[in-house]
Amino acid sequence: MVEEKGPEQATKGKNAEQMAKEHKEISISEFFEKNRHLLGYDNPTRALITVVKEFIDNSLDACEEAMILPRIWLEVKPTTSERFRIMVKDNGPGMMDKRIPQTLGKLLVGSKFYKLVQSRGQQGLGTKGAVMYAQLTTGKPTTIISSTGDGKTSFYELMIDVKKNEPKTISHQYIEDGKQWHGLKIEVEIEGRYVESKSGVASFIQQVAIANPFAEIIFDGPDGRMEFKRGVMEMPPLPKEIKPHPYGVELGVFRRMIQGTSSRTVKSFFTNDFSRVGGISSEEICKLAGIDPKISPKSLDMDNSEKLFKAMKAVKLLRPPTDCLSPLKENLLLSGLRKEIKAEFFSSVTRSPAVYRGNPFQIEVGIAYGGELPPEGTVDIIRLSNRVPLMYQAGDCAITKAIAGTDWKKYGFGQSGKSLPTGPGVVMVHFASTWVPYTSESKQAVASYSIIIKEIKLALQEAGRRMQRYVSGKRRYELHQQKKRIFERYIPEVAESLSKLTKENQEIIKAKLQKMAKEVTEVKSFESELEGQDIEKTE
Amino acid sequence: MVEEKGPEQATKGKNAEQMAKEHKEISISEFFEKNRHLLGYDNPTRALITVVKEFIDNSLDACEEAMILPRIWLEVKPTTSERFRIMVKDNGPGMMDKRIPQTLGKLLVGSKFYKLVQSRGQQGLGTKGAVMYAQLTTGKPTTIISSTGDGKTSFYELMIDVKKNEPKTISHQYIEDGKQWHGLKIEVEIEGRYVESKSGVASFIQQVAIANPFAEIIFDGPDGRMEFKRGVMEMPPLPKEIKPHPYGVELGVFRRMIQGTSSRTVKSFFTNDFSRVGGISSEEICKLAGIDPKISPKSLDMDNSEKLFKAMKAVKLLRPPTDCLSPLKENLLLSGLRKEIKAEFFSSVTRSPAVYRGNPFQIEVGIAYGGELPPEGTVDIIRLSNRVPLMYQAGDCAITKAIAGTDWKKYGFGQSGKSLPTGPGVVMVHFASTWVPYTSESKQAVASYSIIIKEIKLALQEAGRRMQRYVSGKRRYELHQQKKRIFERYIPEVAESLSKLTKENQEIIKAKLQKMAKEVTEVKSFESELEGQDIEKTE
Repeated sequence: MVEEKGPEQATKGKNAEQMAKEHKEISISEFFEKNRHLLGYDNPTRALITVVKEFIDNSLDACEEAMILPRIWLEVKPTTSERFRIMVKDNGPGMMDKRIPQTLGKLLVGSKFYKLVQSRGQQGLGTKGAVMYAQLTTGKPTTIISSTGDGKTSFYELMIDVKKNEPKTISHQYIEDGKQWHGLKIEVEIEGRYVESKSGVASFIQQVAIANPFAEIIFDGPDGRMEFKRGVMEMPPLPKEIKPHPYGVELGVFRRMIQGTSSRTVKSFFTNDFSRVGGISSEEICKLAGIDPKISPKSLDMDNSEKLFKAMKAVKLLRPPTDCLSPLKENLLLSGLRKEIKAEFFSSVTRSPAVYRGNPFQIEVGIAYGGELPPEGTVDIIRLSNRVPLMYQAGDCAITKAIAGTDWKKYGFGQSGKSLPTGPGVVMVHFASTWVPYTSESKQAVASYSIIIKEIKLALQEAGRRMQRYVSGKRRYELHQQKKRIFERYIPEVAESLSKLTKENQEIIKAKLQKMAKEVTEVKSFESELEGQDIEKTE
Repeated sequence: MVEEKGPEQATKGKNAEQMAKEHKEISISEFFEKNRHLLGYDNPTRALITVVKEFIDNSLDACEEAMILPRIWLEVKPTTSERFRIMVKDNGPGMMDKRIPQTLGKLLVGSKFYKLVQSRGQQGLGTKGAVMYAQLTTGKPTTIISSTGDGKTSFYELMIDVKKNEPKTISHQYIEDGKQWHGLKIEVEIEGRYVESKSGVASFIQQVAIANPFAEIIFDGPDGRMEFKRGVMEMPPLPKEIKPHPYGVELGVFRRMIQGTSSRTVKSFFTNDFSRVGGISSEEICKLAGIDPKISPKSLDMDNSEKLFKAMKAVKLLRPPTDCLSPLKENLLLSGLRKEIKAEFFSSVTRSPAVYRGNPFQIEVGIAYGGELPPEGTVDIIRLSNRVPLMYQAGDCAITKAIAGTDWKKYGFGQSGKSLPTGPGVVMVHFASTWVPYTSESKQAVASYSIIIKEIKLALQEAGRRMQRYVSGKRRYELHQQKKRIFERYIPEVAESLSKLTKENQEIIKAKLQKMAKEVTEVKSFESELEGQDIEKTE
C-alpha cells in the first residue's frame, strides 16, 4: 500500500537523485551486442549466413568502387561441432594499413551513410557486427590480411572494445614483402550452424552469382566446393553521388544544412547544396518565402528557414537525377539468370527510375520459365536490393507483397487468391536505390511504401505479359501438334473404310489423306509461331 | 569494360586511399534520425502514437520506481492541419535539474540497460527519439518542466545536436518558487496524424489503464476528454535487481566480467558476480574446468576463461531468482479488465516464472467473456510486455502466434483452423521479463522463442478451461430454461385433451401438470449451476 502524496512518504521507492545516479551512457557496440538479433544474429544458423553475407557484400562493394571485376573466395569450415571458421578473400583494392582498425573495429564508421549513391552497405554496421559476434561467441579476434598493391602486406588480429566502441588491436604487422597483390582477406571463428536450405549459404551464393554475373565466386563449404563463373566480363557503370533533392529533405536536416553550408547567399545555397535547383528555381523559392536571395544562409532564423523550407517543397522541380543508381539492365539480368537457372524462357524488365520520399529508386524484374524448373509448387522468388539477395523476413517485404498482389493466372502461372504464384518459374525482383528503406538493421526486407509496391507490380506485369506470349504460343503449338497426331492416327482406319466403300485402292486413299492432313493441320513451327513477338528466348 | 589486373588500370575506380578518406564516424542520433522507422516513426499516424507511448512509459516507470501511485495527464491537440502538440504530465519523482539535458537530450543514455530488473524502458532511446522526431519535423525544441519536491522548478527548452549526439539547451531556468510539487511535464510539437482505430491513442490509453489499474489517467484528445480512474489503490511490489545467471551469459560478456570484477578469487567471482552460484557450485565449476579456485580472475588467460565458461554452463544450478519480476497477479489483472470491459465473466492466470536464454520471464493471461462484448468477429486481443500495450506488428509477435495456435473451440470461442478465435471475448496476455526480446527497437512484438510460446499457450489453456466451465454451465442453464418453456407452453393443450379423455376438470389437470413440470424440469439457478466450480465471475 502506498501513498500518493510525495516520494518522501514512499518507504521503498527511489527519489530523483538516486535515479539520476543510475543513468549511464551505453556504447553503440554494447547496444548491438545485447540486441544482436537486430543485426541478424538471432540464432546460430542465421548468424552464420549473416557473417557470410556481410563479408561478401563488403568485398563486392570494394571491388566495384575500384572498378575491378570481382573474384571472391569463400570458405566455411567447421572447427568444432558448434563452431565455424569463415574466410572471405577478394581481389579488391585492399585497405590502407593504418585505417584497418577503425574501419573494421568500430561500429557506425562508414563511407556510405552520408553519400547519396547506390551501394550494398549503408550504415557501417555489417562487418563490425561479424567481428563483434565472433568475439562474443568464441572469444577469438578477427584476422585481417590486406594489401593495396604497394608491395606491403598488413596482418591484423582485431577485436572491439565493446564498452568504448573502439578497435582493440591484438597483433599487427606491416611487412614490406614485395608482393604485388591487392585485396582483403578476413577470417572469423563463430558459433554457428550450417544448414542447407532455401535460405542457406549455397543458395545465397547462387543468388549473389545471379545478381552479380560479372563476379567470379568460389565457395568451399562443409559439403565441398562450388564454382560460380562469370557470365559477362563487364561491370555496370559506377553510380555517381548526388546531392539531396529538396522534396526528400526534412525540416531538421534542412536547418542543419543551412548551419553547415559554405555558400554565401541563400540563392547559391540552394543551387550548390541541392540537386535539381537552378538559379531560376532558387529565386522562385526565395520569392515564395519572401526572403532576399542575396542574404547569407547563416543569418536565417528559425521562422525564415521554415518559410524557405515550405517554399522549397511547393516549387515545381525536376525529379532527382538517376545516375546515382546502377541497375543491372536487361543484359546483366538475363546473363545472371541464364548462367544459373535451367529454364527455357527468360524475360527481363528494367523500369524507369521513380522516387519515394525524395530518394530515387529503380525496379528490375527477371522471369525464368519452364525447362528443368519443377512444374509443381510455388515459384522460386529471388529478392535483391542493390544487388544483394535478401534471404529472410520475406513476409514483411514489399517485393513479396507485390508478387502476391499480382494476378499471375493471366500470365501462365497458377495462383490461389492473393498467394504466391505456382508453376515452373523463377521470379526475380531487384530494388536499386541510394537509400533502401529496410525494415530492420539486418537488412532483409524492403519497407512497403505504396509507390514502391506499385513500381514492382508494373514491372512484374510487363515481364508477365512477355511470358504469357511465350506460354500461350507454346500452348497453341502443342495443341496443333496434338490435333495433327490424332488425325494421323485415324488415317489408316478411315482409308480402309473408304476403300471398301469406293473400291479405290486403300494405299492411294491413305496417301491422299496424309497429304490432306499435312495441308489442313499444317502449323508453323514453334519458332515461327513466336515470330515477330517481342519476347526473350534462350538460345 | 574493365580489366582484372589491378586498381591502377581501372580508369574510373577509386583506390584504397581515396576510399579511406571517405570513412566517417556516424553518431547514433544521426543513425536513428535517418532510420527513424526503426524507432516507430514510419509515418505521421504511427509517429503520434509512438510519442504518446514513450512519454507514458517513461512517466509510469518513474512513478513506480518511486512507489508513487501514478496520476498522468495526457494532452494531444492539433496546432495546424499536420502538426500536433503532445503533453504528458505526471506526479512522479521529477528529474534533477542538472541531469535533465543528458537524460532527455542524448540517445543511448539510460538507467535500465545494464540492470536485470523488469521495467518498461530498456535501452535509453524512447523519449530522446521523440525529442529528435519533433525537431526533425517541426524544428521545435522540447519543453520540460520538472520539480523533485524541493521548492524549486526547472524549465528547459531542449534539442539534440544530432551530429554529436549531445543535448543542446535552448533555454534554461531553475527557479526557487517554493512550490512543493514533484513530477515531470514534457511537451513536444510534431508532425503527426490523429486517427482513431484499434491501434490509435484512445485505444492505447485504455489498454494502459487495464494493464496498470493503479494508475489514474486523463486523456484530453482532439475529440474530447476521457478519464480512466483507478481500479485499485495498491501497486505491485517493486521488483529487485538481480545478477546475471551463468546460463544466460555469453563468452564475450563473461570475459568482460572477468576483466572488470573486483572479486579477488575465481571462487568469489562466481559467488559475487552471478546469481544462483554458492560456494559449493563455484568450487564445482573450478574443479570441472581444472582451475584453482583461489587464483585471481585477472590472471586467467583466454584458454582458461573458456574452460571456466564451459564448466559454468555444465554445472547444475537453480533457475534465476524471480523477484526481479513484477507480474500483475490475479487481483490487478481482474481489476484492470473489470473496470474497462463490460463482460459477464472474467478469468485470470499467472504462471510461475520460466527462463529463456538465461532471462527470467513470466506469463499472465486474462480473459473476458460475454456481456456487452460484440458476439461476432475476432476477439479483441491485448498484448502487453512489462505492462506496456503493444499496438503494432501483431503478426510478428509470439503472443499472437500462441493465441492462434491454441484450440479455442473446446473453450467456447469460434475458430477456423489456426486463425484467431472469434466470439464475445477479450484475450489479454502479459509478458513480464528483465529483458524483453523485442523484434525491433520500436518494441512492438515479442520474439518467438519456443519456450515463450509454450508458456503463453499453457496459460491460455488454463484460462480457457475456466472459461469453458462458465460457458458450458451457461449453455446447460439456457437449455434447461428452454425445455421448461416448451413443456409449459403445451400444458393447456395437453390438459384440454386429457380432460376430454378422462372427463376430469380441465383446470385441475392443468394445475397438476404445472406442478409436475415444476418438479421434473426444476433446474438449479445459473448461480447454483456454477456452484463449487473454480471460476471467477463478475459481481
